Amino acid sequence: MRIHVVNPNSSTGMTEQIGRTARSVASPGTVIDLTGGGTTCPASIEGHTDEALCVPPMLIQIRQAEARGADAHVIACFDDPGLGAAREVAARPVIGICEASVQIALLLSSRFSVVTSLCRSVPIIEDLVEKYGAGRRCRRVRAVDMPVLAIEEDQTTAAACLTAEILAARDVDRAEAVILGCAGMSALCARLTAETGMPVIDGVTAAIRLAEALAGMGYTTSKLGVYALPLEKPGGFGELSEVALRA
Amino acid sequence: MRIHVVNPNSSTGMTEQIGRTARSVASPGTVIDLTGGGTTCPASIEGHTDEALCVPPMLIQIRQAEARGADAHVIACFDDPGLGAAREVAARPVIGICEASVQIALLLSSRFSVVTSLCRSVPIIEDLVEKYGAGRRCRRVRAVDMPVLAIEEDQTTAAACLTAEILAARDVDRAEAVILGCAGMSALCARLTAETGMPVIDGVTAAIRLAEALAGMGYTTSKLGVYALPLEKPGGFGELSEVALRA
Amino acid sequence: MRIHVVNPNSSTGMTEQIGRTARSVASPGTVIDLTGGGTTCPASIEGHTDEALCVPPMLIQIRQAEARGADAHVIACFDDPGLGAAREVAARPVIGICEASVQIALLLSSRFSVVTSLCRSVPIIEDLVEKYGAGRRCRRVRAVDMPVLAIEEDQTTAAACLTAEILAARDVDRAEAVILGCAGMSALCARLTAETGMPVIDGVTAAIRLAEALAGMGYTTSKLGVYALPLEKPGGFGELSEVALRA
Amino acid sequence: MRIHVVNPNSSTGMTEQIGRTARSVASPGTVIDLTGGGTTCPASIEGHTDEALCVPPMLIQIRQAEARGADAHVIACFDDPGLGAAREVAARPVIGICEASVQIALLLSSRFSVVTSLCRSVPIIEDLVEKYGAGRRCRRVRAVDMPVLAIEEDQTTAAACLTAEILAARDVDRAEAVILGCAGMSALCARLTAETGMPVIDGVTAAIRLAEALAGMGYTTSKLGVYALPLEKPGGFGELSEVALRA
Amino acid sequence: MRIHVVNPNSSTGMTEQIGRTARSVASPGTVIDLTGGGTTCPASIEGHTDEALCVPPMLIQIRQAEARGADAHVIACFDDPGLGAAREVAARPVIGICEASVQIALLLSSRFSVVTSLCRSVPIIEDLVEKYGAGRRCRRVRAVDMPVLAIEEDQTTAAACLTAEILAARDVDRAEAVILGCAGMSALCARLTAETGMPVIDGVTAAIRLAEALAGMGYTTSKLGVYALPLEKPGGFGELSEVALRA
Amino acid sequence: MRIHVVNPNSSTGMTEQIGRTARSVASPGTVIDLTGGGTTCPASIEGHTDEALCVPPMLIQIRQAEARGADAHVIACFDDPGLGAAREVAARPVIGICEASVQIALLLSSRFSVVTSLCRSVPIIEDLVEKYGAGRRCRRVRAVDMPVLAIEEDQTTAAACLTAEILAARDVDRAEAVILGCAGMSALCARLTAETGMPVIDGVTAAIRLAEALAGMGYTTSKLGVYALPLEKPGGFGELSEVALRA
Repeated sequence: MRIHVVNPNSSTGMTEQIGRTARSVASPGTVIDLTGGGTTCPASIEGHTDEALCVPPMLIQIRQAEARGADAHVIACFDDPGLGAAREVAARPVIGICEASVQIALLLSSRFSVVTSLCRSVPIIEDLVEKYGAGRRCRRVRAVDMPVLAIEEDQTTAAACLTAEILAARDVDRAEAVILGCAGMSALCARLTAETGMPVIDGVTAAIRLAEALAGMGYTTSKLGVYALPLEKPGGFGELSEVALRA
Repeated sequence: MRIHVVNPNSSTGMTEQIGRTARSVASPGTVIDLTGGGTTCPASIEGHTDEALCVPPMLIQIRQAEARGADAHVIACFDDPGLGAAREVAARPVIGICEASVQIALLLSSRFSVVTSLCRSVPIIEDLVEKYGAGRRCRRVRAVDMPVLAIEEDQTTAAACLTAEILAARDVDRAEAVILGCAGMSALCARLTAETGMPVIDGVTAAIRLAEALAGMGYTTSKLGVYALPLEKPGGFGELSEVALRA
Repeated sequence: MRIHVVNPNSSTGMTEQIGRTARSVASPGTVIDLTGGGTTCPASIEGHTDEALCVPPMLIQIRQAEARGADAHVIACFDDPGLGAAREVAARPVIGICEASVQIALLLSSRFSVVTSLCRSVPIIEDLVEKYGAGRRCRRVRAVDMPVLAIEEDQTTAAACLTAEILAARDVDRAEAVILGCAGMSALCARLTAETGMPVIDGVTAAIRLAEALAGMGYTTSKLGVYALPLEKPGGFGELSEVALRA
Repeated sequence: MRIHVVNPNSSTGMTEQIGRTARSVASPGTVIDLTGGGTTCPASIEGHTDEALCVPPMLIQIRQAEARGADAHVIACFDDPGLGAAREVAARPVIGICEASVQIALLLSSRFSVVTSLCRSVPIIEDLVEKYGAGRRCRRVRAVDMPVLAIEEDQTTAAACLTAEILAARDVDRAEAVILGCAGMSALCARLTAETGMPVIDGVTAAIRLAEALAGMGYTTSKLGVYALPLEKPGGFGELSEVALRA
Repeated sequence: MRIHVVNPNSSTGMTEQIGRTARSVASPGTVIDLTGGGTTCPASIEGHTDEALCVPPMLIQIRQAEARGADAHVIACFDDPGLGAAREVAARPVIGICEASVQIALLLSSRFSVVTSLCRSVPIIEDLVEKYGAGRRCRRVRAVDMPVLAIEEDQTTAAACLTAEILAARDVDRAEAVILGCAGMSALCARLTAETGMPVIDGVTAAIRLAEALAGMGYTTSKLGVYALPLEKPGGFGELSEVALRA
Repeated sequence: MRIHVVNPNSSTGMTEQIGRTARSVASPGTVIDLTGGGTTCPASIEGHTDEALCVPPMLIQIRQAEARGADAHVIACFDDPGLGAAREVAARPVIGICEASVQIALLLSSRFSVVTSLCRSVPIIEDLVEKYGAGRRCRRVRAVDMPVLAIEEDQTTAAACLTAEILAARDVDRAEAVILGCAGMSALCARLTAETGMPVIDGVTAAIRLAEALAGMGYTTSKLGVYALPLEKPGGFGELSEVALRA
């Protein structure tokens, strides 16, 4: 089985870290096809604008990965940027790491909290959790208030801040599990679980495993409504991807 | 990996059918540990009372299966009877087939419908779907109005009725995917998918794959809140299961 | 009028206390038919498993009480265990003390809080309140974090802890009324009302009065959908209750 | 026990009919203190303006009835006009017939429909049902599209129209119970129940019984928040009611 | 363009202050037709009873203002009293200042808080915000706990209390904007914005501008359902307004 | 006042039509600064992918228009593509035509329906309406099932189809107002209003007027949370817009 994991931002350090996590959690026999955002993409995704800029190149990568034989796709950014569009352009299932970790949290606990990077992302994640139907079971979205790249660069400080928020989620929010709300926190998941004794859920791990499950079942995204292929039109995705696939 | 699949009712025909589906969809290397409800359980589960009667023996089976080495448990009845209690008594993850198929439907479509057996189960399933956070994305819960055991016995009639409802879900509800709302419909899933061209989701398949995903990640149910082990007390689960495990 | 009050757990002390409350609040002319859980039931109900174990014997007691002429039934446990199943097996109305106290709180206040026994029950009660449509009007579910039997045994400590939480509900949550979230707190209701000046609502009292109201109107549970009698089947409630009624 | 039943409109025919229903369903020993809207009130309540015009005189009647010893109040109009204000000015519990019938429907069924008079009232009642937390359990609000006074004057036609809608509620909506959405339909309740075999809920009956239950428990509306007495001020209720009580 | 601004209470000081704000924010060419509640109205609106008392005279004023040529109406009280009724009796659009400020807040921020006068109004405003569909985006309804007339009389103290709550909304609630929850706070809006650096939204300003926008588009309230003219009937609005228009 | 109206797609015919509507509804003194999507944008926006492709160039246009002195921005596509990102990059208010028309519909009616172009857009619009808090008041999202460009090219057929759906919204859905769910329908609004007698709301008109109202009040988007300026970073919006502004 071949899982395409795309880091939509242009930070190669983060792409590599995500790749390490993905390979370490994938089942034997699963090949990870790893891509990162090109240099025209923002170096990190912190808000709606960063999301918007990274999506068009990501859609091309998804189409290219499918041409290389991907059985499923994982979008490795916690804002799940372009998830709907990706489901339109892909024949295979597409999983966002926020949606994946929310689903896993719902299966393992009755109430959870999320810890993300910046405060400005809190309402974005609250809205995603609500959209995914888990608003009532999410106790709180917390932030360590560190930029994404700072988390990647200084994992020691990040771990300390995350530990504090995870313990607050347990003791103040009475959450039963915690979701790490940023792909850049993936490498810290095992350590945080060990240090806090809380079930800590990493979205990259969750999404890889859900992608394997969906691909293994042979399911594909429904093409009967919203997620039908984009219509052919001037300036549409068909033209764009044709050029890209020929390149 | 070892997945315990429990049919909470006492119909051995249905247990066997569920076992066949489970084995056919499990990943290579997954062992299916199949159990069915004892003779004190109802022959089918059609309403709250049937659910209530099947849960206590099922909890014992879960504890016993865990003693045999189960890595995860699947409750193979679409009402997800006893799911919360099962999560309390098990150390390993427990998946209900309704919750599992709702999660898969959310990943593959923007709107889905459910087709279940009896009309009297419609509000029960509506309530479950709402509880799982998918109320707004479920177009409609439909029923073929055949008892569970009739579906099992007369798969030809069942297939015809299900086809009609699936097409209505597509054309009237504008659903993009359909969930089969009864474990006894599992064997018909491939045929219905082929005949209707709709993505048709079977809960047993969905739950087996999610159980593999969760167990593969090494996750366990959070024991920090609602799903903590039942407290020891006279008449409590501890006493009950001790007797059962010695037997 | 004859009201059947069932304590689903096996604590005879609690059954007696519930009986005293029930008799003291019933209208003149109302006969309280009091039953308690048999020795196979847990001594207290603290979580989904305890609930599951107590329901099947309780359903038999409801059928037997109806054979003795009950005009309505009250399930005297705040988790409202088996309420849906009880409504299926009974011809007469069935009232749970959580649902009853939520309805009374909605009639007397615009916002209320609940104070229950253990922290682990908080999400269970939050979910019930939401299911009963009062989620937005419930400020908070609080817990004194005492086991049910400890509350029954040490009413002095319980009263002190409850007073503190009731005052916090008034001052911190700005609740206008408080619901006691455990049948074992019934005997403290008058004292807590007097000490705090808050409207304090006891579910046993609320349910008895609602049961009288429903029975007095001659209403019965609708048998046209979910609450129809359980279908006859091997291992079903029909067989079970026939044996019990002959005994 | 003394229950004040106020018909907020000025139709004396409807006031008398409500009085007959109230007296026929009240418990032995309950005295019905019946009042109707004065001649400055609209003859029927069909929309927000009619509601608004009837509330100030109704609040005076509530204060006067309390001075005469009322133990509880029933507002006998299905829009529940002035319910919040009435709870402010009354020391005793106040019950609206819409809220009361919704509560009873929730205790007797899992899904219900409402049948009201005019189509223009449908969104008003939908909003009330939602406000009372029952939106998800209300299948549909139907209308016979007859003005309130026409229903009162031509009960035969009204009964025929209501029967048709009740059967549609059962067969099309799959409702398990039906609420009559107008006080002027009270006298038809028994007949409609008999003719349709559906549980048909009349709000006057429901409210009288709930009022007895609340008064019997000795509960009063919480005065700790929204329902505190209106503040004294020029042009406020204090001045108004003082004049009225002296008159 | 002619905008009718009605202060439903009888405080002439507040009417004048609202008039000053209205005139200062209206577009050039907009004429403000200002009315205040007559002496039979409460001097301030703090709860459901005050609301109820002020509505019938306000409806007459709306009809009279329309006879004078009003193109739109603004109800300048944050409880939006009688908004539905006003939409029935008016041909032209009617805007409440709570609904208007909530709409503006939704366009300028992702999360907002409200600061109102009395604590007893908090649930009333929470319910309005929920009714207007913004419940999930409202972080908190706060109160300075000063009566409306005290705010008007002592603007210095009011400003200090409001500043404290606005800063708490920013720092504790993480609101991105704040709505002033009382017409009597209008005159403080510019000062509070300057002092706190927060976007502070005044409902009178918001409603005047929305009224201009609606009237400028030539839109009128839909008369096809709930907001149709009140039906003619004895004691109805037709009679009442005829008398008033002749006077 | 200067309002920037951007048509995010590359259809110049549609851009011109939107410009005609915008100019015809703007207040005297308002200058419309009209832009359309460049040739790299899709010719119409029908689904998530089309949305994604049009957003990055649109964000540049918003920044450029602001440099030209825009006081507010209108995104003239009913999917409100890039609305959140636009609010980040703009100092001035940004209005989407879906959000605007929903707000206007809420002020004029108690229940509305939407009529859009393609069926595949129905769930997208349902989700937007829900996000804007109007889910409960939207009776139904209907589609004429014509592609956007076909509507623009054949306005006669479009008008006939729209009339049929608007009448169905009135008679079947019992909607009191109808929103046109596509910018390409703007030119038909007056004709449809006249033909059907329904209040028909065009989003371009609604948004222009709301933009004038917001800009006239001097309000700007809150920069204290989600809508703060995008952070500076490699590949971020700062770099991109600097290049564009120099060009």
